[in-house]
Amino acid sequence: MNLAESLDRLFYPQSIAIVGASAAPEKVGSVCLSNLLEAGFKGRVYPVNPGLSEVMGAKAYPTIRAIPEEIDLALIVIPAPLTVDTVEDCAIRGVKVAIIISGGFKELGTEGGLHLQAKLRNIANQSGMRIVGPNTVGVANPAANLVASFQSSFGLARAGSVAVVSQSGGMSAYIVHALTMDNSGISKVIGLGNRCNLDFEDLISYLSGDKDTRVIALYIEGLEHPRRLMAAARQAVKSKPIVILKGGRGEGSRQATFSHTGALAGRYEIYRAAFRQSGMITVDSVAELVDTVKALTFYPPPVGNRVAVLSVQAGPGIVIADRCREQGLKLAEFSPATAKRLRQLISPMNSVDNPLDISWKFTEFDASRGILNAVLADDGVDAAIVACVFYDAHMELIRAAIDVTKSPHKPIVVCLDSPGGLAAAQIESLETNGIPTYPLPERAVTGVAGLVRYGEIMVNHSFTTFHPEKVNISR
Amino acid sequence: MNLAESLDRLFYPQSIAIVGASAAPEKVGSVCLSNLLEAGFKGRVYPVNPGLSEVMGAKAYPTIRAIPEEIDLALIVIPAPLTVDTVEDCAIRGVKVAIIISGGFKELGTEGGLHLQAKLRNIANQSGMRIVGPNTVGVANPAANLVASFQSSFGLARAGSVAVVSQSGGMSAYIVHALTMDNSGISKVIGLGNRCNLDFEDLISYLSGDKDTRVIALYIEGLEHPRRLMAAARQAVKSKPIVILKGGRGEGSRQATFSHTGALAGRYEIYRAAFRQSGMITVDSVAELVDTVKALTFYPPPVGNRVAVLSVQAGPGIVIADRCREQGLKLAEFSPATAKRLRQLISPMNSVDNPLDISWKFTEFDASRGILNAVLADDGVDAAIVACVFYDAHMELIRAAIDVTKSPHKPIVVCLDSPGGLAAAQIESLETNGIPTYPLPERAVTGVAGLVRYGEIMVNHSFTTFHPEKVNISR
Repeated sequence: MNLAESLDRLFYPQSIAIVGASAAPEKVGSVCLSNLLEAGFKGRVYPVNPGLSEVMGAKAYPTIRAIPEEIDLALIVIPAPLTVDTVEDCAIRGVKVAIIISGGFKELGTEGGLHLQAKLRNIANQSGMRIVGPNTVGVANPAANLVASFQSSFGLARAGSVAVVSQSGGMSAYIVHALTMDNSGISKVIGLGNRCNLDFEDLISYLSGDKDTRVIALYIEGLEHPRRLMAAARQAVKSKPIVILKGGRGEGSRQATFSHTGALAGRYEIYRAAFRQSGMITVDSVAELVDTVKALTFYPPPVGNRVAVLSVQAGPGIVIADRCREQGLKLAEFSPATAKRLRQLISPMNSVDNPLDISWKFTEFDASRGILNAVLADDGVDAAIVACVFYDAHMELIRAAIDVTKSPHKPIVVCLDSPGGLAAAQIESLETNGIPTYPLPERAVTGVAGLVRYGEIMVNHSFTTFHPEKVNISR
Repeated sequence: MNLAESLDRLFYPQSIAIVGASAAPEKVGSVCLSNLLEAGFKGRVYPVNPGLSEVMGAKAYPTIRAIPEEIDLALIVIPAPLTVDTVEDCAIRGVKVAIIISGGFKELGTEGGLHLQAKLRNIANQSGMRIVGPNTVGVANPAANLVASFQSSFGLARAGSVAVVSQSGGMSAYIVHALTMDNSGISKVIGLGNRCNLDFEDLISYLSGDKDTRVIALYIEGLEHPRRLMAAARQAVKSKPIVILKGGRGEGSRQATFSHTGALAGRYEIYRAAFRQSGMITVDSVAELVDTVKALTFYPPPVGNRVAVLSVQAGPGIVIADRCREQGLKLAEFSPATAKRLRQLISPMNSVDNPLDISWKFTEFDASRGILNAVLADDGVDAAIVACVFYDAHMELIRAAIDVTKSPHKPIVVCLDSPGGLAAAQIESLETNGIPTYPLPERAVTGVAGLVRYGEIMVNHSFTTFHPEKVNISR
């Protein structure tokens, strides 16, 4: 069975055996089983526990071998020393993919831990089985109602187009939660843990062919074989962007990183240079990752870095312009023709410079649409950021932005916050119609900078003559 | 009337005249009046409009002069050319403070605009009146049910201890919203606009004596008299921290900044150096401002920069440690005695290094409390960050953190997000009990870095021998 077939079984299983399933609520095996059931998983579930005949309404089996039907995925939640027999049983039963939640392996830094993990790896390699983990948070696939994890909150993620591949379970949770809170949906989440025989390069390769995934987000700590990741990334970024956050960046962090998932974290600068050479977009925080990813799920990259800033009040326009410069974006210069057109459309109180203050006009649909069209039609403009801050008054501007996006258009990003959910409907309306929103000025710029960065990657890597319209990530 | 008395009338008025009050919903004067009424303002409200006898159920007056009772505050929302007569009427009636929402003054950059503003200034100075604006968003004071502004969303702000003083109305809105969404309450919000005869130094001076304000947050674009701001700040930071964000940082931004509120924005590096010399904490984004401010509303500064990181899962601990180093914080080294004590308390699977992985033990109240107490008792630890990510399982750790804070303690900050409101009650419980929370690892570090920075300011400025317990900002 090839990698893609194994990982299809992982993310779209028809049947799951949970080894260590339990009804005792404090047990991880119980949390995993109830997460699976609460997510509404449609396939067959086989609890495995030699001490029980039934768990949460499902017949329990004493071993994997006792299960009468085919098992697509084994989810293993038992003490480390017991996992070897179970994985052998899986091999005998022809199980092609297993998730080992349990810790107690290479991450301990002990002879015993290393030895145990090597045993698992040998059994798996010999039988053609892939192991997620050990020492992992597990896997989730919202579109398949799959939560094979002790992290109950994965059940809150909405189905979408971001794949999260994380070395750390805790960081996968913060990342998935932050994406969820910003309305970004998830295609797959996977915690790789100790990466027994399934590593970043395997996931990148699989996800680059996954039709549900438009953007790949990685959290890594350390790698034994960084060149494999780089090779896989160089290939994958031809069709979709990869955004990467590295933990364990400081010298002193090596010890903690090692004892976490058993990998040495090298010098960050070397890693970062390597990531960039391979066409990945590097970020330094969860917030930056989430903001970068969001715009990339909405738009192919623009052809350049020249941004037009339109703001309903002048201050946010100034702050956005500052941030554009600091992030390597250029403030577009409007052509004389555009300036002339804008002069007819905006208030005589305001100048026609970029950032463009559209006060007095943003309450009028026709004026707002005219201004947006004039700006986007300018050959010197590659993308636009629109800053709103009046909940009651900016409906016409939002309607105009949505109207403009009905025709082919350059990326538009809207900065619009929603205290008390005040603008929730407006945000929903914008995003459903293909316009991403950000709650703060600087965050909107991060989104556009991510788009521009991906465009630069496509050009610099000279994968092909660059035709943004051919990049298959339009929503 | 001195400055403090005038500003007391501004923030705690007994009576307000709204000049330009209207019932036509598209008029700014109507929005201002309904915001005032909807906020539940308890004082008297006098609409002024020569064309109406009644507005929103209140008797209207043709002019300020026709109002039979004393007027604490005049809120002026009429076309610029008409404001001169109204301000003259205010002077005749002995009004000591007015807010002029209207634009059309110095920000236009025209002779006429400058002239009009100079006229207002002369009338105000001669009669001892202070003018907020012109070209301002107005003022809000949640504790006094006061929203004297067209920004309806100011009504959502909860009463608290952060004063927001902003040159830009739009930026004041983004800042207040972001604070509100992160549970930080507001003591006062004021948009200074064109700063006719009321400037940053006046507000800093007033707020440093305001018992409801613990932290002052400033957004500025440009200043005619930066030394006045610096002198006021140098004095104010002895008793409370000032966090400052500057807009108009790039060279090209000067024009936009000028036409916004009529002030030239100088080179950012010079401003930043000046701000720091005066003891202000400089930030570069709204998110950084909000995160810095939050911790400062909870704690006096720690005596040093040595941080202990405790995490329920290893990955977030590693990321927090990275960020600590990058923000100039030190990872505390536990003393041999602390290490010995921790060895007894944490799982034998985990090492006793910093960041400290407390997995296996965070579900036990006694173990969690013991670990926290051991870490905080270490003389080499100045503050602690605790990273949680399991909603169902970390209740005992949260209870332990709250228990520990009942005794005098060093700053503890908890990293805990809440997708779908899942941890809302836990966050509320922590914050009510004096522990600030942040939704992302890097944001928790920003909070602690702000505390440490304020401690350094207190020491470097040698205002006094530094006794953090005497700094009057404990919650």
